[in-house]
Amino acid sequence: MFITFEGIEGSGKGTMLERAVAWIEQRGKGVLCTREPGGSELGVRLRAILLDSRNSDITSRAELFLYLADRAQHVEQVIRPALASGKVVVSDRYADSTIVYQGFGRGLDPQELFKLNDVAVGGLWPELTLVLDLDVETGLERARSRNQQLGIEEKEGRFEAESLAFHTKVREGYRSWAKLHPGRVRIVDASGTPDEVFARVCVMLEEAGL
Amino acid sequence: MFITFEGIEGSGKGTMLERAVAWIEQRGKGVLCTREPGGSELGVRLRAILLDSRNSDITSRAELFLYLADRAQHVEQVIRPALASGKVVVSDRYADSTIVYQGFGRGLDPQELFKLNDVAVGGLWPELTLVLDLDVETGLERARSRNQQLGIEEKEGRFEAESLAFHTKVREGYRSWAKLHPGRVRIVDASGTPDEVFARVCVMLEEAGL
Repeated sequence: MFITFEGIEGSGKGTMLERAVAWIEQRGKGVLCTREPGGSELGVRLRAILLDSRNSDITSRAELFLYLADRAQHVEQVIRPALASGKVVVSDRYADSTIVYQGFGRGLDPQELFKLNDVAVGGLWPELTLVLDLDVETGLERARSRNQQLGIEEKEGRFEAESLAFHTKVREGYRSWAKLHPGRVRIVDASGTPDEVFARVCVMLEEAGL
Repeated sequence: MFITFEGIEGSGKGTMLERAVAWIEQRGKGVLCTREPGGSELGVRLRAILLDSRNSDITSRAELFLYLADRAQHVEQVIRPALASGKVVVSDRYADSTIVYQGFGRGLDPQELFKLNDVAVGGLWPELTLVLDLDVETGLERARSRNQQLGIEEKEGRFEAESLAFHTKVREGYRSWAKLHPGRVRIVDASGTPDEVFARVCVMLEEAGL
């Protein structure tokens, strides 16, 4: 069983993923908890390049292929062996992030991105992808207050109009993408308290047979 | 005008490329001489990872996407600007290397690799690709004697039967690929002296309008 969590910044992915992992372990199943980018040794090196690239001249196409290289390595070295050993694998972001952020967000063709990702992952798609859906203002406010708690400094500009427009496209992108993959990609209302949201997540985990 | 040189190890690519560059410059044209992998700043970092990978656990699929990332960056940052400024661009290896080595050589689907490369290069293919064609034994013997001259130590094992079989597949792959792209990919008989081979190269450069 392979499960991924998706969503905009501040949608509560991290919290729900942690709770889901604990919930699955309580049911006596082994769990591998992982993330992208940077889920493998190669991935750590690529993540460093990708983060460096914020200030460099890396092109969007080169960046896309670096994400795909990271993902290909992650699948073959980390995810497939864990699944083969009978573990449940839970990942914070996966191929759908690239499709939604670079496709719906940045204007590349989502179907083309789907095909490229399908090559990168060798046809391995999750059984269940939970998209934590939240209005963008609330998400960005949550992300900002989390960053303040963690002592991460943020320029106010990051949350200005343009960023809001981008995140809105991403949110709408996740919704459109879920409609195209109704069996696998499920929208979870991420408004309310963590307990309220996790109750909704649990319903879907149980429906998936966990 | 964008020209690439291809061929197996020891086929004389490097020598013919140097001569071609000098020949084009003598005709009063500006030339950018480049190579893959490692033709851009990002490419240099990726080349280091790719070379490291000899002894690591990098998967063939991740390696493929690293080559594509290198190529995407090379095209957008180096090749396209040079072409836009009116230069002739001459590259030592390009997309056809990936298609032939990983496709015909390692058994991936060449047409699938063609499509992935087409995305990476944004549809930019050379006007002329010269494949220096030589029997594999002669090529490997040339490469070995060059390496000895340069003081590069080679294990004899590198030239053993399995390697020979691989290089034979690559040579045959270049020939098959050329038949599928008769207008662009031209086979050049690379046997004989450098002067003899370069006379054949010149005929093709002139036919291409240089």
